[in-house]
Amino acid sequence: MVDIATRVWNHKWKIDPIVRSLIDTDFYKLLMCQSIFRNKPETTVVFSLINRSTKVRLADLIDEGELREQLDHVRSLSLTRGESTWLRGNTFYGKRQMFRPDFMEWFEGLRLPAYHLEKRDGQFELTFEGRWPEVMLWEIPALSVLMELRSRAVLHDMGRFEIQVLYARAMTRLWEKIERLRGVEGLRIADFGTRRRHGFLWQDWCVQAMQEGLGAKFIGTSNCLIAKNRDVEAIGTNAHELPMVYSALADTDDELRQAPYKVLADWHEEHDGNLRIMLPDTYGTEGFLKNAPDWLAGWTGIRIDSGDPAKGAETAIRWWQERGEDPREKLVIFSDGLDVEKIEELYARFNGRVKVSFGWGTMLTNDFRGLVADDALAPFSLVCKALSANGRPTVKLSDNPAKAMGPPEEVERYKRVFGVGQQEVLEVVV
Amino acid sequence: MVDIATRVWNHKWKIDPIVRSLIDTDFYKLLMCQSIFRNKPETTVVFSLINRSTKVRLADLIDEGELREQLDHVRSLSLTRGESTWLRGNTFYGKRQMFRPDFMEWFEGLRLPAYHLEKRDGQFELTFEGRWPEVMLWEIPALSVLMELRSRAVLHDMGRFEIQVLYARAMTRLWEKIERLRGVEGLRIADFGTRRRHGFLWQDWCVQAMQEGLGAKFIGTSNCLIAKNRDVEAIGTNAHELPMVYSALADTDDELRQAPYKVLADWHEEHDGNLRIMLPDTYGTEGFLKNAPDWLAGWTGIRIDSGDPAKGAETAIRWWQERGEDPREKLVIFSDGLDVEKIEELYARFNGRVKVSFGWGTMLTNDFRGLVADDALAPFSLVCKALSANGRPTVKLSDNPAKAMGPPEEVERYKRVFGVGQQEVLEVVV
Repeated sequence: MVDIATRVWNHKWKIDPIVRSLIDTDFYKLLMCQSIFRNKPETTVVFSLINRSTKVRLADLIDEGELREQLDHVRSLSLTRGESTWLRGNTFYGKRQMFRPDFMEWFEGLRLPAYHLEKRDGQFELTFEGRWPEVMLWEIPALSVLMELRSRAVLHDMGRFEIQVLYARAMTRLWEKIERLRGVEGLRIADFGTRRRHGFLWQDWCVQAMQEGLGAKFIGTSNCLIAKNRDVEAIGTNAHELPMVYSALADTDDELRQAPYKVLADWHEEHDGNLRIMLPDTYGTEGFLKNAPDWLAGWTGIRIDSGDPAKGAETAIRWWQERGEDPREKLVIFSDGLDVEKIEELYARFNGRVKVSFGWGTMLTNDFRGLVADDALAPFSLVCKALSANGRPTVKLSDNPAKAMGPPEEVERYKRVFGVGQQEVLEVVV
Repeated sequence: MVDIATRVWNHKWKIDPIVRSLIDTDFYKLLMCQSIFRNKPETTVVFSLINRSTKVRLADLIDEGELREQLDHVRSLSLTRGESTWLRGNTFYGKRQMFRPDFMEWFEGLRLPAYHLEKRDGQFELTFEGRWPEVMLWEIPALSVLMELRSRAVLHDMGRFEIQVLYARAMTRLWEKIERLRGVEGLRIADFGTRRRHGFLWQDWCVQAMQEGLGAKFIGTSNCLIAKNRDVEAIGTNAHELPMVYSALADTDDELRQAPYKVLADWHEEHDGNLRIMLPDTYGTEGFLKNAPDWLAGWTGIRIDSGDPAKGAETAIRWWQERGEDPREKLVIFSDGLDVEKIEELYARFNGRVKVSFGWGTMLTNDFRGLVADDALAPFSLVCKALSANGRPTVKLSDNPAKAMGPPEEVERYKRVFGVGQQEVLEVVV
């Protein structure tokens, strides 16, 4: 029996929108947005899409008109009443009213600002300029739109059953991973795959499969819309953009040296418990920990997002011990380049020595490697980053020079200020 | 958007019926039924379900009440107008009005006769007794019901995503087979998997996947309902039940010796072209061909359904050569225990020497081997056969003694009459 209303409803759409909600974004974007809205509301920033996988020529694959339609659709979105009610009324990290009334009022009136789009050398130059709390909300929708338009482009010429079998293969692959993870006693793992997902519906499927397959081992998703729809926890804390922008705003080297701690001081005022998770790698984990103020050792945990994750965790453990903290009480969240083997390995090594949890991204929501000809659906490394703040360039070093960003002379200055020496180059897969 | 009407419609069903149409059956059953209706309408037969895989304890898995509900539902079915129109008006094997008006009139009034069901030793004893043209139509629905109830029993305690991944795995497996078969230049293959299918919807999926994946290499399905719905050819000729019942009715050894040829003489009168396919193995292929009347060498082809298929085909080729026929003009249909490797192997060996085609059954529509715990969905060997005709037992020898049927003393008499010597025992997988 055909559901006529559904078919007619679907026909009405000029496009099939990829992003259909302002909360189809990562939870930490909203936490950070609130923090920025409070502490740095007037900062002007430029965010830009950067495709680190230059072999994937997005502008050859994706029609510019379609991309504009999708981006324009994102700009037409505003927070729905149900979404607002959920953000205002839901308990996040055990806390009611995580989002303050003044922030919610602002968010309810928000439309995303204009974008600037050009084609160059087979890539799209997509930039967003304006006030930080508004512009920063473009990051995830921009990535989602590009990622999914690329998937659609590849799927366009496939047959109906070929497509069904493609998803059958991807489902089977993910389920085999879940079956393996089921064997890891005491595992705690979350979906961090919004930004690099194959598509929205696929991420939604992955989350549901994790719910059924892992039960209590699956602790939630970074995606607010999916968390709301599937009634799971929204997960996330903060990201590199805070120290990057705070640092760019610093007037002196001394201010620069303190900027990453200023970020966490502001965060400390707003949040406690499991939201006090530091991200130490923006300008090198070693130096960050060595120079950290004592109060930071009292924080709940650390997120390891670049470099050799085992090395990062060992560094953190030593640091806690030096500061008189018991590492067994501390939480280490691994979130970089994870797949099942790495998760098993890290869990086996660190469980018991610290509390361990995982934010599983690309290889959860976009493992289509080898499933179509020319590996045309393999995940690739697309990011959307703050390039400048109040006209000054941002810099990121991280624990892997392959992930470094910024003008070379500024990178050198930051290395000097933060005392970053030789770093090991690791391949950035995704 | 929920389609209320569909949901309410689904709620109305007391059961989810497995067989929903009298033409959800193999095409050759209808051809044979018409032949029986014409030549032996008053013969009384007993058909019985036989589970050769005694390890699969069907009566422990399947609730007797559910089985009765399904069988009762089958008895409530009658030919719909659309089905009747299709049978009367469609072209089968290039011929219009394949089904004669007197047969169609009878068929339109038909309801399947009563069944007799008992449980014994973990198995169901399911028998059907009555006039041959009516009872014989129980074969496929009875098998479909048992096969699918067994699948449902195994699936009953699985989670939603576990089930989805199960089908994802089965789809992936079939698609990989199809991709391999796509490489076989000039292949002609049909779905013969109704009787041993995992379930109706799964067979329907398999047929559609073959349509898309193999294009013109896929020549049709034995299932009339799916042929009608998916607009593909209905495929099939005749089966062992004709020689088995004709033979049981023979009064003397001499009549017995002639019975298999009498079957084909009746068939010869009714059909020509690609429907003149002999099935030589009921009482041993060697003897059957040696003693065959000359007019049989003029038939279009042969179906190899037991024993070593390559040996059977070589025997047929020699026989045609001895009778002055050109084997390259003859059709050899392989239909026993096929899977991709065997299909490739037989095709490579015989293509060009004869015309080759394949009737692919169990490993097309029920390859769930290894996909659930304890291999509980592995296909198994269930048949529904004529046990007796007008009170006399039937016998089948075939080219594999593991497939022999009938009372031992009758089996010995048949072996003597048909001159069957030593036979090689081959494992019956499905």
